[in-house]
Amino acid sequence: MSSKLWGGRFTKTTDQLVEAFNASIQFDQRLYREDIRGSMAHARMLAKVGILTQEEAASIVEGLAAIRADIDAGEFEFSVALEDIHMNIEKRLTDRIGAAGAKLHTARSRNDQVSLDMHLYMRREVGEIAALLQELLQALVDVAEQNADVILPGYTHLQRAQPVTLAHHLLTYCQMLARDFRRLENVWVGADIMPLGAGALAGTTFPIDRQHVADELKFGAVYDNSMDAVSDRDYLLDFLSFASVLMMHLSRLSEEIILWSSAEFGFIELDDAYSTGSSMMPQKKNPDVAELVRGKTGRVYGHLMGLLTTAKGLPLTYNKDLQEDKEGVFDAIDTVKVSLSVYRGMLTTMRVRRDRMLQAASGDFANATDLADYLVKKGLPFRQAHEVVGKAVRHAIETKRLLAEIPLNEYRVLSPLFEEDLLNAITIDECVNARRSLGGTAPQEATRQIAVLRTLLAAQAEKIAVYAEKNQVLAE
Amino acid sequence: MSSKLWGGRFTKTTDQLVEAFNASIQFDQRLYREDIRGSMAHARMLAKVGILTQEEAASIVEGLAAIRADIDAGEFEFSVALEDIHMNIEKRLTDRIGAAGAKLHTARSRNDQVSLDMHLYMRREVGEIAALLQELLQALVDVAEQNADVILPGYTHLQRAQPVTLAHHLLTYCQMLARDFRRLENVWVGADIMPLGAGALAGTTFPIDRQHVADELKFGAVYDNSMDAVSDRDYLLDFLSFASVLMMHLSRLSEEIILWSSAEFGFIELDDAYSTGSSMMPQKKNPDVAELVRGKTGRVYGHLMGLLTTAKGLPLTYNKDLQEDKEGVFDAIDTVKVSLSVYRGMLTTMRVRRDRMLQAASGDFANATDLADYLVKKGLPFRQAHEVVGKAVRHAIETKRLLAEIPLNEYRVLSPLFEEDLLNAITIDECVNARRSLGGTAPQEATRQIAVLRTLLAAQAEKIAVYAEKNQVLAE
Amino acid sequence: MSSKLWGGRFTKTTDQLVEAFNASIQFDQRLYREDIRGSMAHARMLAKVGILTQEEAASIVEGLAAIRADIDAGEFEFSVALEDIHMNIEKRLTDRIGAAGAKLHTARSRNDQVSLDMHLYMRREVGEIAALLQELLQALVDVAEQNADVILPGYTHLQRAQPVTLAHHLLTYCQMLARDFRRLENVWVGADIMPLGAGALAGTTFPIDRQHVADELKFGAVYDNSMDAVSDRDYLLDFLSFASVLMMHLSRLSEEIILWSSAEFGFIELDDAYSTGSSMMPQKKNPDVAELVRGKTGRVYGHLMGLLTTAKGLPLTYNKDLQEDKEGVFDAIDTVKVSLSVYRGMLTTMRVRRDRMLQAASGDFANATDLADYLVKKGLPFRQAHEVVGKAVRHAIETKRLLAEIPLNEYRVLSPLFEEDLLNAITIDECVNARRSLGGTAPQEATRQIAVLRTLLAAQAEKIAVYAEKNQVLAE
Amino acid sequence: MSSKLWGGRFTKTTDQLVEAFNASIQFDQRLYREDIRGSMAHARMLAKVGILTQEEAASIVEGLAAIRADIDAGEFEFSVALEDIHMNIEKRLTDRIGAAGAKLHTARSRNDQVSLDMHLYMRREVGEIAALLQELLQALVDVAEQNADVILPGYTHLQRAQPVTLAHHLLTYCQMLARDFRRLENVWVGADIMPLGAGALAGTTFPIDRQHVADELKFGAVYDNSMDAVSDRDYLLDFLSFASVLMMHLSRLSEEIILWSSAEFGFIELDDAYSTGSSMMPQKKNPDVAELVRGKTGRVYGHLMGLLTTAKGLPLTYNKDLQEDKEGVFDAIDTVKVSLSVYRGMLTTMRVRRDRMLQAASGDFANATDLADYLVKKGLPFRQAHEVVGKAVRHAIETKRLLAEIPLNEYRVLSPLFEEDLLNAITIDECVNARRSLGGTAPQEATRQIAVLRTLLAAQAEKIAVYAEKNQVLAE
Repeated sequence: MSSKLWGGRFTKTTDQLVEAFNASIQFDQRLYREDIRGSMAHARMLAKVGILTQEEAASIVEGLAAIRADIDAGEFEFSVALEDIHMNIEKRLTDRIGAAGAKLHTARSRNDQVSLDMHLYMRREVGEIAALLQELLQALVDVAEQNADVILPGYTHLQRAQPVTLAHHLLTYCQMLARDFRRLENVWVGADIMPLGAGALAGTTFPIDRQHVADELKFGAVYDNSMDAVSDRDYLLDFLSFASVLMMHLSRLSEEIILWSSAEFGFIELDDAYSTGSSMMPQKKNPDVAELVRGKTGRVYGHLMGLLTTAKGLPLTYNKDLQEDKEGVFDAIDTVKVSLSVYRGMLTTMRVRRDRMLQAASGDFANATDLADYLVKKGLPFRQAHEVVGKAVRHAIETKRLLAEIPLNEYRVLSPLFEEDLLNAITIDECVNARRSLGGTAPQEATRQIAVLRTLLAAQAEKIAVYAEKNQVLAE
Repeated sequence: MSSKLWGGRFTKTTDQLVEAFNASIQFDQRLYREDIRGSMAHARMLAKVGILTQEEAASIVEGLAAIRADIDAGEFEFSVALEDIHMNIEKRLTDRIGAAGAKLHTARSRNDQVSLDMHLYMRREVGEIAALLQELLQALVDVAEQNADVILPGYTHLQRAQPVTLAHHLLTYCQMLARDFRRLENVWVGADIMPLGAGALAGTTFPIDRQHVADELKFGAVYDNSMDAVSDRDYLLDFLSFASVLMMHLSRLSEEIILWSSAEFGFIELDDAYSTGSSMMPQKKNPDVAELVRGKTGRVYGHLMGLLTTAKGLPLTYNKDLQEDKEGVFDAIDTVKVSLSVYRGMLTTMRVRRDRMLQAASGDFANATDLADYLVKKGLPFRQAHEVVGKAVRHAIETKRLLAEIPLNEYRVLSPLFEEDLLNAITIDECVNARRSLGGTAPQEATRQIAVLRTLLAAQAEKIAVYAEKNQVLAE
Repeated sequence: MSSKLWGGRFTKTTDQLVEAFNASIQFDQRLYREDIRGSMAHARMLAKVGILTQEEAASIVEGLAAIRADIDAGEFEFSVALEDIHMNIEKRLTDRIGAAGAKLHTARSRNDQVSLDMHLYMRREVGEIAALLQELLQALVDVAEQNADVILPGYTHLQRAQPVTLAHHLLTYCQMLARDFRRLENVWVGADIMPLGAGALAGTTFPIDRQHVADELKFGAVYDNSMDAVSDRDYLLDFLSFASVLMMHLSRLSEEIILWSSAEFGFIELDDAYSTGSSMMPQKKNPDVAELVRGKTGRVYGHLMGLLTTAKGLPLTYNKDLQEDKEGVFDAIDTVKVSLSVYRGMLTTMRVRRDRMLQAASGDFANATDLADYLVKKGLPFRQAHEVVGKAVRHAIETKRLLAEIPLNEYRVLSPLFEEDLLNAITIDECVNARRSLGGTAPQEATRQIAVLRTLLAAQAEKIAVYAEKNQVLAE
Repeated sequence: MSSKLWGGRFTKTTDQLVEAFNASIQFDQRLYREDIRGSMAHARMLAKVGILTQEEAASIVEGLAAIRADIDAGEFEFSVALEDIHMNIEKRLTDRIGAAGAKLHTARSRNDQVSLDMHLYMRREVGEIAALLQELLQALVDVAEQNADVILPGYTHLQRAQPVTLAHHLLTYCQMLARDFRRLENVWVGADIMPLGAGALAGTTFPIDRQHVADELKFGAVYDNSMDAVSDRDYLLDFLSFASVLMMHLSRLSEEIILWSSAEFGFIELDDAYSTGSSMMPQKKNPDVAELVRGKTGRVYGHLMGLLTTAKGLPLTYNKDLQEDKEGVFDAIDTVKVSLSVYRGMLTTMRVRRDRMLQAASGDFANATDLADYLVKKGLPFRQAHEVVGKAVRHAIETKRLLAEIPLNEYRVLSPLFEEDLLNAITIDECVNARRSLGGTAPQEATRQIAVLRTLLAAQAEKIAVYAEKNQVLAE
């Protein structure tokens, strides 16, 4: 009567538009490797506990491998009528191997099956993203190291505040990316839990061995509660939170890349290979990559908000609403991966215009704090020193000079504490080198930070190798 | 040197990954009809003002029509290297007709071109969505009318509050959809403004005639400021706000459909054609359509948040970030259209179980307010009447009876104002019929509302006809 | 037994923490004028239809006026135990005038009462915001007019693209604000509907006259469906959408103010009265106002997302969740009002550094499009002209010159079409003046736009007067 | 000239509206304990390294302690003109102790000072929330244990799917809360880093000892990069992500509480102390607490989105936008704390109506999967068994019977595999008890889960003690 695998109790067929509306095969076909691999493990476990014969299990595994090869080769036609990746593959399997195929779905439901697929999938993607993230971090550390002696203005409120090294500035982003990596490790922990065996929601009456499946698929843990196993989407939200914060970080760096590429700043020049032109204005060279990454921050935030909204107020356990957990996550994954990739190339090929940076750092009042510190070291309370220097700045502006251009006698009108050693204390090099407090902008501090980060990079590499080794099961 | 149409000043080619990252052809090919139609109008205008010859314009229009036919027929291969729909079509045009094609981009930029495409596209989609929305509203009015005498509990806090008719209940959603339609009309107003002629941002030095283009494409207005024309995305945000509120409305109705389909409520049965089953549990019949619409609310909210985020803090005028304005809008359009379509079918085929509804409305204390009103009409201040009836309810609960089952003498213990006419005042029919205040649940009020809505439906139909007539230009 | 006005059926008192959790008096006391005014209208209507005597109504109105005076004077102590503004006032009224007070709640519920309060409140705030928005628009038009001949670079991708006038640039924001005003008018329409008489959800059994209440309170319409009247929050979402888009607009202008205030751009100087300093760095002068407005965009987006989330999936009619509709809206209102206010002062006091702007517009390749247009006018197809000029730009960069500094003979190597009139065509004045297309950057176009906007401002003033006249009822 | 502590370079005073707009004292006064405690540590460190004398430091610490006592006692008047908590306290200190006070700000900026305040504050709140979260988890485990033998329908799609125990059902939420606790631990890690010494952004020229400050305040780490220290808000985003997911979890449980409290489900009755009534309808008893928690999910999502938006695209380092990091976080903290508190009381006082639950679980087809499993165990492939049972269900519906009411002979028409043992296999007790797979709904699995959770609770208690011990520094 019905072409549906669940159609027994129904007397009418599904409306065609509804069929297309409900179907997920358009996007969940992305999970075919995970679905097949999970079914292989399920079949072997069923044989192990005696629900299937070894022959049936072997036939199923072989059949699934053949289907995987077909899909790899682009020779599998997906059917919307079969709704999703699970039914598409099960149906094909049964067509191919007969009765044994019809036994595969014993002791499981699509609810725990899709959950397994997504966990396997997220593990794979976390592994790949971890590698890309580490590569970007490594590149950024390298660029920082190469620019250890480049001085530019440090900004607050986009006003020049105090001179800093470019290394110091870029290492700030390294710290952000290092935190992102830790966040990603937590996503892995949430993904690395095995849900199969939860059945539709309540477990199963068959004597299955969930740990066996988990071991074959190298999962670190097994869901302890079957209802949780089919309704938990926290690890996807954790991923979207990670992705949102990562994109926020990249949006900040993008803003700076864009500012620095402007004629007004002129601090860097992006490589032609990482810029584009205008269809109308022949002179244009645009920092499209940085703009697009900044712009894509919106879509990732949107996906986070979307899944949070979808999950709000849902009673236990599975509700069809949860089918909406995939497309946003897939798109966020793609966005993050491509953003990390292009960013690395853009950063490693950009040309730093150290002269323009130095000129900007020198041509203003970025050494005013040092002037105040000078007075404090001579004994003036800081709050009064601040007041004196504020007047000095006003005086300099009114007379169109920089602080270093004001003669000592004029300074001494403001305070008798000013002495001959004044000018040495406010040279730009001194401003940078004197900030030797832990984490300050003095070069030795950047060197120290870089060493710490290189140790971290090595630890990340080990973690990435563990992920890769576990994800290797997908190819088996 | 470069395959790019803007490559003159560049000495290196674009990195391949960057090329793919920057390209929009994967999704903006959806705009091909609009792009071609806009170019036809542009060419004719250029000829009218003497920038092109009539022959050149005719050749361009003919060439574009041929390309459109190719794309319609699926015989056009889009190139990522050519970035976007504009360059893909312009390049093909020049290949096909030669020099005249290379003149088409005179006095315009991709910035105003893509803006024109999106305006034309949104007009088309607003027209289609308006029709679908009106059809759903019409269906809902019909269903309400058919259930004018069906009584169910009205709820607050999901507690039974007062009996209402199903017509009255459904007409609430009609009011929401009516507001949605007005919101959509505002989207049209924002979309129906012609941006071409803004050039990259500052207008053009050519003596173009923007009104001529607007007239040919039947636009209601022309952007008054060229910088605004290329950076305005308000109409897309207005659309996403409309879509979010619409989905919110549908999510509320979905929640009720889901509740009513549960065994516990049992108020309706969805048609088999609008339900699906379970791969594991043979007895299941699930309200997937309603769940999925409720779930998709998340993605639409997400798209709104995404575009708001993307637009935040962008300096004038065009920034590459704005390329991110399309995919979310496209997806929201698709989501809204399919949701409206399946919803109509689901509602018109559902079976109302009036007995279950009536039983629920009768089997509780939904007539308690009427009991209080009874006392007020006998002269007791409302606040005291409320107190008395509260005690009556407590008494009824403790003695496991309904209000109508308590004998008069017990009522008179609570208040001497209770008399023989009491029971007539709190029958369920009286509860419904007595609420004759404007907009109340009495049947004649539903009839009045329905008449008002039918007038509105007719007005909407006229509006839809106007939209369709304007959108007809796309086929020319 | 219970201190609650609804406690009749309850046998235990409310947990204290729950009482505080449920209470809304902390924030809804903001609605006291609206609540009192609505109750006055309700009482008069009840008297008109005979439910109250004229004496009772007069006593109620007088009592309410006295309470209003107390609250105005800060002499009213709100009670959390009485939950909300409605109960606080009703209780005080009954304490003050006795039995008549206990009759006030006849034929209404808190559900329709709070809805009335919020509608009155939103009308008032829309009126005030409309005035502030119009004042900002007016100020911006004035500033634009004063800077009609100031030339700065127009940007795309934050790269200098083509010279524009500052007037033209600022008028872009005027267009945005003009759209915001229209959006606000739509919020008014949604707020200007009278909900009272809906009762808890189903209307009332009393012969009330809803139109009478609407007339007294000068509402433009009456809710046609009682269930809609108590559950509709669309007008609040419309307000939050308006506020989000407005803040997005201001965030864009803020970004420019911040950029322009930087040492690198140096296009403007904000007045001391609109800047702040640093506790540590004596030289700093920060554009805090612009930054804070840009930053506050986040909270307004958040409130929109918050209410959309809260409303998602709620069954009819009133649910306690809807109490969450207020704080976000209140905060968005406050944010919008103060942002509009400070912005006006900031803009009208800022100093434009026209020399820096002109220098930036001249010192680059912003006239490259004009060079291409020149060739097109000599007969070269645009696409080829673009290519030629691209090469000219590359040549200029390599030889460190501007386009106007390259001698004709070098140009003629690139194309024989270049002639003596070349230099005149690419002066910065010509670049600006030649863009005479409708909405282009030529001064006469700015003049035209300003005239259009002044007409609009006058129309807005009329609208604002209508709002103010209606809102006058609150003082009666 | 200026009352501002930073006013040296300014020639005009701040506009009054701007002053109020920029000020944060209205909300950051919440940080007074942290601000004072941080300043004490800073002063002691300055003395230790010789920048202050021991006498100066002692005078400062004593003065600060006195100010803290004043504020504790409500005897401190905050000034908007002094902008923020830092300036309010520093000014008062200097007024009180003279010159030494003016030295306190040596080697720090408000940028690192406010960062320190927020880190201390978040540590404190994380500690308190951890305790509340653990208490709720504990209460939920207890309620689960008390209801180990209560059977209700497990749902998918809000359709009855398979019977489960109430313990099993509630333990699902325990798993969610357990994950929330782990998320909160990560928030602690991000908060437990010491930023002071970063100065405005670049560190300081004074020979400070940041580790000394960290040790005194018991911080686990010190920010390694000064620019990161003043611009990092990740830990606040991590908190808002935690809070959003937690509220999402509570919103799901709230939805169930609301459903279960409805007349239709009737599974539980909330205690009077955790319910409220209606001002109009005397019979109402509403689950306000659950509704309000569900509704408040929106505001917390909104705060997450708000801060993500605010942080997007900000260049380094501090920008005034970041002042917007507080109010949303404060409100989310308050919301989470009160929600956790009321929830615990609501859950531990609710009355479970086990008869209604059992009736619902029995009165439907929730044993259909077991019937299919029965056939599979007799040798039928699952997919065919599913089909057979689908027909059985349809037959039962058509004949208005439950599965257990169909005689064996009718079953045998569908399949000869049905035998006498059939009815035993589909009793509701058997349905529950047979699901002994790991994490399944059989009682022994719930017992096992509870034991695991009790171990976790103990580990959490240890963690909470560590937090409390560290936070103890605030009282010193």
